[in-house]
Amino acid sequence: MTRQRSTEGGDSPYETFSGDITAPAGFRAAGIHCGLKKKNLDLALVVAERPATVAGVFTRNHVQAAPVVHSRRVVAGGAARAVVCNSGIANACTGAQGLRDAQEMGALAAEELGFLSTQVAVASTGVIGVPLDMAAIRRGIPRAVAELGPSGETAARAIMTTDTYPKTAALRVRLDSGTVTLGGMAKGAGMIHPDMATALCFLSTDAAIEAPALRSALAAAMDVSFNCITVDGDTSTNDSAFLLANGASGVEIAEGAALQTFTTGLTTLAIELAQAVVRDAEGGTKLIAVTVSGAADRDQARRVAFTIANSPLVKTAFHGCQANWGRIIAAAGRAGVAMEEARTDIWFNDVHLVRSGLASPSDRAAAEAEMRKPEVALRVDLGSGGAEVTVWTCDLTEEYVRINGSYIS
Amino acid sequence: MTRQRSTEGGDSPYETFSGDITAPAGFRAAGIHCGLKKKNLDLALVVAERPATVAGVFTRNHVQAAPVVHSRRVVAGGAARAVVCNSGIANACTGAQGLRDAQEMGALAAEELGFLSTQVAVASTGVIGVPLDMAAIRRGIPRAVAELGPSGETAARAIMTTDTYPKTAALRVRLDSGTVTLGGMAKGAGMIHPDMATALCFLSTDAAIEAPALRSALAAAMDVSFNCITVDGDTSTNDSAFLLANGASGVEIAEGAALQTFTTGLTTLAIELAQAVVRDAEGGTKLIAVTVSGAADRDQARRVAFTIANSPLVKTAFHGCQANWGRIIAAAGRAGVAMEEARTDIWFNDVHLVRSGLASPSDRAAAEAEMRKPEVALRVDLGSGGAEVTVWTCDLTEEYVRINGSYIS
Repeated sequence: MTRQRSTEGGDSPYETFSGDITAPAGFRAAGIHCGLKKKNLDLALVVAERPATVAGVFTRNHVQAAPVVHSRRVVAGGAARAVVCNSGIANACTGAQGLRDAQEMGALAAEELGFLSTQVAVASTGVIGVPLDMAAIRRGIPRAVAELGPSGETAARAIMTTDTYPKTAALRVRLDSGTVTLGGMAKGAGMIHPDMATALCFLSTDAAIEAPALRSALAAAMDVSFNCITVDGDTSTNDSAFLLANGASGVEIAEGAALQTFTTGLTTLAIELAQAVVRDAEGGTKLIAVTVSGAADRDQARRVAFTIANSPLVKTAFHGCQANWGRIIAAAGRAGVAMEEARTDIWFNDVHLVRSGLASPSDRAAAEAEMRKPEVALRVDLGSGGAEVTVWTCDLTEEYVRINGSYIS
Repeated sequence: MTRQRSTEGGDSPYETFSGDITAPAGFRAAGIHCGLKKKNLDLALVVAERPATVAGVFTRNHVQAAPVVHSRRVVAGGAARAVVCNSGIANACTGAQGLRDAQEMGALAAEELGFLSTQVAVASTGVIGVPLDMAAIRRGIPRAVAELGPSGETAARAIMTTDTYPKTAALRVRLDSGTVTLGGMAKGAGMIHPDMATALCFLSTDAAIEAPALRSALAAAMDVSFNCITVDGDTSTNDSAFLLANGASGVEIAEGAALQTFTTGLTTLAIELAQAVVRDAEGGTKLIAVTVSGAADRDQARRVAFTIANSPLVKTAFHGCQANWGRIIAAAGRAGVAMEEARTDIWFNDVHLVRSGLASPSDRAAAEAEMRKPEVALRVDLGSGGAEVTVWTCDLTEEYVRINGSYIS
């Protein structure tokens, strides 16, 4: 299910290709079944074969899962050799015991791998409020270490919850000093809203980058990717993104143009993974890119875009392929941002349905034809400034209600 | 479907009873079919038989429907004799023509009734972005005037859109100086979120109250009723509440204790109507009262309560009767209010499921038995202050998606 994209042109320094978290040199991974789920893979391990710097981004929910609390400390140190992640149980709302369990999970992997326990990050995703089955984790970690290999495919499967397929991506960046490779995997698929989406996102690169520069690159990439997607407006307790840089390519990236080029490549990769999360959203049948332009500033554009992207009435209208532009303009109007109906224009892909706040009924059928496509670009121009932001969302379906009326999370 | 409630005790000055907007002396109403809808009633008229003061509360959406713009001016004058309301077309996002249509609708009713056109408020609800069919309105208004009578039942039906039953309420308030009567009607049923809910709400009283006091009473009542309900987080462009006081009882209410008693009675009536809107929410199958207590202040309590009440994951869990308290605590954690998981307690009715951030699995079945009831009180105590707020919401169902995937609004 990894999406492949051709090189963006002869002059582009970026080349996406079918690959995963092990695409960069010097990374190995494994995904096994340790027993937290009935039968699907539920324990993932990603290892840097040589010392690596690390950066991380975490949920801003005031309720933070134990692995988030633990991994913040690991990331603060700036160096990491491995990330161990289970699915099935979130180890969130589990009190002091939960924190001890997260620490033990990292320590077990560190011991088995011969690393410092302060250099193993931990992540969990799944049911909230249930203690980790540590017997399964203890049995599983040595087996995951034994199965470490050159493919990240099973690891990408082992972090899935309600995702229907694994999400991986890879990209090469050509710099003056050489080529570096980036790889990644992510999971969704509900409780998705910044910051930073529910998703777990693991990224790797064989570039050599010090931790402070790595942090700024990751923050910039997340800001326009995982922090710009929403499925249901619910921010998870477990959101975590990690980026490990092991320097195996021998290419050093410090500041300036090289770091900028690297950051753009990382952003491309992160957007690909973030869009994959929305494409596979619980019950979602289409990817909707909501662009708000003509705003006074980026913050206002973002608030309007997310209010539209989270409106149940807008999302059900997309599901029913009804060009209910009144719902879109009403959502924009309640975003807490000054706007004038008479300056507002709306496009569905290239169909310019609303001009200066009014729609031509004759354009409605054309707009609805666009809405029936699996990917729709909705653009709302506020006519009052130069700022523009795009966020991605999905439609709201009966299937979302069915999944979340029965799934315990 | 009007709910009847017995007197709250021998000493209570309040008595709710089965009645509607014409319950107070000196009000007449009518509801007719003028042709905006295929066959259901679609034009309502409420008339004060003697001069009345008026107060109003309107949507805070930046996009305001034409009747809202027009009626704000009427209400600003402090006096009104009638409210004319159509359903089927919202007259929102209709530009300059929409405003002319709203003005003409008020002027036609005023002419027919012999009132000043500055004393006739107008409301509309229905599809956004479609011009009012003024031919139908012009034909309808004289007929509505001809059918004015002592019952508000047809008027309550004529303001319905996706509502499945009319919502009316009435209440008597015993004051030292005499008894006054209040009546009201409201409609929902989607695009419900403060301020002030989508709902249209029309209230009447035969008390004699000057406009400034009437405004303060209405604002206080709306603050804890229609401004505390949500169905889908979408604030409408047409929200309007009107309160007319015609003084027919001969009981004057100025300030102090009498005004306070009147305001409490008005609040009781408004809560009854607001709850009726949530009970009849699009696709909703249960009324959920979300109380957040132990908050630092009312604003924080309100933000947490609405974040929980609008969470799709919480609402689907209530639909599935799954005591997914993790979703509740995760929603509280993303409300932008400092809170500590370890100080948080959660009750489902009287079942105390979560204590200090942890749940006893043995209480889960009892909590889920409570969730299966048609009315559930969810209480979340943040353990960090004395403020408490209650808001009302409904569950999120497949039926909501079906209704809003096909209904054009």
